Amino acid sequence: MAPRRKKVYEGKAKILYEGPEPGTLVQYFKDDATAFNAQKKATIEGKGVLNNRLSEFFMTGLTNIGVPNHFIRRLNMREQLIRQVEVVPLEVIVRNFAAGSIAKRLGLEEGTPLPRPIVEYSYKNDELGDPLVPEEYIIAFGWASQQDLDDIVSLALRVNDFLSGIFFGVGIKLVDFKIEIGRVWDGDFMRLIVADEISPDSCRLWDVKTGQKLDKDVFRRDLGSLTDAYTEVAKRLGVLPANTGTVKPTLIN
Amino acid sequence: MAPRRKKVYEGKAKILYEGPEPGTLVQYFKDDATAFNAQKKATIEGKGVLNNRLSEFFMTGLTNIGVPNHFIRRLNMREQLIRQVEVVPLEVIVRNFAAGSIAKRLGLEEGTPLPRPIVEYSYKNDELGDPLVPEEYIIAFGWASQQDLDDIVSLALRVNDFLSGIFFGVGIKLVDFKIEIGRVWDGDFMRLIVADEISPDSCRLWDVKTGQKLDKDVFRRDLGSLTDAYTEVAKRLGVLPANTGTVKPTLIN
Ligand SMILES: Nc1ncnc2c1ncn2[C@@H]1O[C@H](COP(=O)(O)OP(=O)(O)O)[C@@H](O)[C@H]1O
Ligand SMILES: Nc1ncnc2c1ncn2[C@@H]1O[C@H](COP(=O)(O)OP(=O)(O)O)[C@@H](O)[C@H]1O
Ligand SMILES: [Mg+2]
Ligand SMILES: [Mg+2]
Repeated sequence: MAPRRKKVYEGKAKILYEGPEPGTLVQYFKDDATAFNAQKKATIEGKGVLNNRLSEFFMTGLTNIGVPNHFIRRLNMREQLIRQVEVVPLEVIVRNFAAGSIAKRLGLEEGTPLPRPIVEYSYKNDELGDPLVPEEYIIAFGWASQQDLDDIVSLALRVNDFLSGIFFGVGIKLVDFKIEIGRVWDGDFMRLIVADEISPDSCRLWDVKTGQKLDKDVFRRDLGSLTDAYTEVAKRLGVLPANTGTVKPTLIN
Repeated sequence: MAPRRKKVYEGKAKILYEGPEPGTLVQYFKDDATAFNAQKKATIEGKGVLNNRLSEFFMTGLTNIGVPNHFIRRLNMREQLIRQVEVVPLEVIVRNFAAGSIAKRLGLEEGTPLPRPIVEYSYKNDELGDPLVPEEYIIAFGWASQQDLDDIVSLALRVNDFLSGIFFGVGIKLVDFKIEIGRVWDGDFMRLIVADEISPDSCRLWDVKTGQKLDKDVFRRDLGSLTDAYTEVAKRLGVLPANTGTVKPTLIN
C-alpha cells in the first residue's frame, strides 16, 4: 500500500504534498489542463510527465547559471522535490513578442516584436481572473516591496535571457512566459527564488520556421494534440522521458 | 575579375575590408588557426566557413534579445557585413568553470565550478601576450572608464546567460568565452556593443555527457579534428553550411 502523505494544496495542474524534510514539498504534476480561468478543462494523457521533466530541465539550467529556484530533485515520473516557499501572489510575466492578453489590450497583432522585453504582473487570484496590476497596486497592498520588485525584475530578465537562449538554439521562439516567485529565509535573511514550474504550460513557444505553436495555446485554441506539441519541445531539448504513459507509485516518505 | 577592396586590417583569424557604406566593414573569416600567441599555427580547412555561420547565429540571437552587437548580415560563406567600431583594447573573458589560464594561475583543477561567473580582462596586445589586467590598470591607462566597465560587465553577463542557455539546450557546457567590445556613436551619444566574433574559437565548449572538447582547445592540445568538433557544434544548433569546402568569390562593392 502506498504510504500516506499529507496533501498541502491541490491546484489546477499540480498537487503539493508535505516533503520528507521540513521546508520541502513534493510537487506532483497532474495531466489536467485548464484555460480561461478553468472554464475550459481536459485531461491530457502524459502532460504531467512531460512538464515534470521539462521543469526539472529548465530549473536545473537556471541553477547552473546561479538563478536561485525551488527545484531540489526529481523523484519519479510525475513528482519532484522542491523547496517550500512563501509564494508572492503574483504571476510574473515576461513578454518578448505580443501575444494573448497584451495583443488584445493594446490592439497589437500577435507576433509583433515588443520594443524591449516587458515584465508585467497579474495578481494571482482565481476569483478575480488573475488581473493585470501595476506596481503601484502591488506595493500599496503589500504583496511585494519596491526592493522585492527590483529583484524580481532582475530574476525575470535573467530567466528570459537564459530561456531565450535555450529555445533559440533549437529553433523555437520564446514569445512570453510566466513564473512565480517565492520567499525563503536563511535565518533572518529573506531571499526571492523562482518557484512553481517552467514548462510549455507556462511559456508561449513558436517554431521559428513554421510559426507552429508548441505550448498550451494548442489546448486553449484547439490546435491539435497538446502531448505531441510538448513532446516535440522535449525531443528538441533531448529531454525524453523513457515512458510517458505509466506513472510509477510514489516512494517518498 | 573580383573587384578590389581596401584591406583595413589582417589579423590572425580574420581580415577586415572596407564596407560598402561608411561605418561598415566586411569581416572575412580565414581558415588560419593560431594558439599560444601565434607560436602554434595551422590552416584548418573549413574553419572560417563554420565560424562565419556560427558567429552570425550567436550575434543574431543576441540582437533578438536586445544585446547590441556589430553584426549586420552575412554576405557569403566566409564574409559578413559588420558595423565598424572603435575596439576597446580588451579581451573580455567570462568564466563559469575553471579552465586554461585561471586554472593554472590559481591551481584549480580544470572543470571546477566557479563560485559565480567571473568577468576578467586581458589587455589586447600581441607583443605582451594579452596579459590579464585588473580594472585599476584599465581605468588608469584610459582604455575604458569605470562607467564603461560597468556597462561591459552587464553586457558580458547577459551574453553569458544567453549563450549558456543556447548550449545547455543542446547538451554542451559553456566553460568560458571571450568577447570584444567596441564603441559606436549615434551623434554625440557613445554606446558599447559586442564586436569581433562568437564562435568555438572564442569559447570553451564541453560536451555535457562525455566531457569532449568542442572548441579551439582541440587544436591547442592536439585532440583531433578541429573541423569535426566545430561541425558537431554547428549540427547541434541546426547551423549547417550547405557546403563548407568551397569559397564563393566575394561580390561586394
Ligand atoms: N516552491 C513552492 N512552495 C510553495 N508553493 C508553491 C511552490 N511552487 C509553487 N507553489 C504553488 O503551488 C501551486 C501549484 O499548483 P497549480 O496547480 O499550478 O495551482 P494553481 O491552480 O493555484 O495555479 C500554486 O498555487 C503555486 O503558487
Ligand atoms: N566591428 C568591428 N570594427 C572594427 N574592428 C573590429 C570589429 N570587430 C572586430 N574587430 C577587430 O578586428 C580584428 C579581427 O581579426 P583577428 O584575426 O581576430 O585579429 P587579431 O589577430 O588582432 O585578434 C581584431 O583586431 C578585432 O579587434
Ligand atoms: Mg498554477
Ligand atoms: Mg582575434
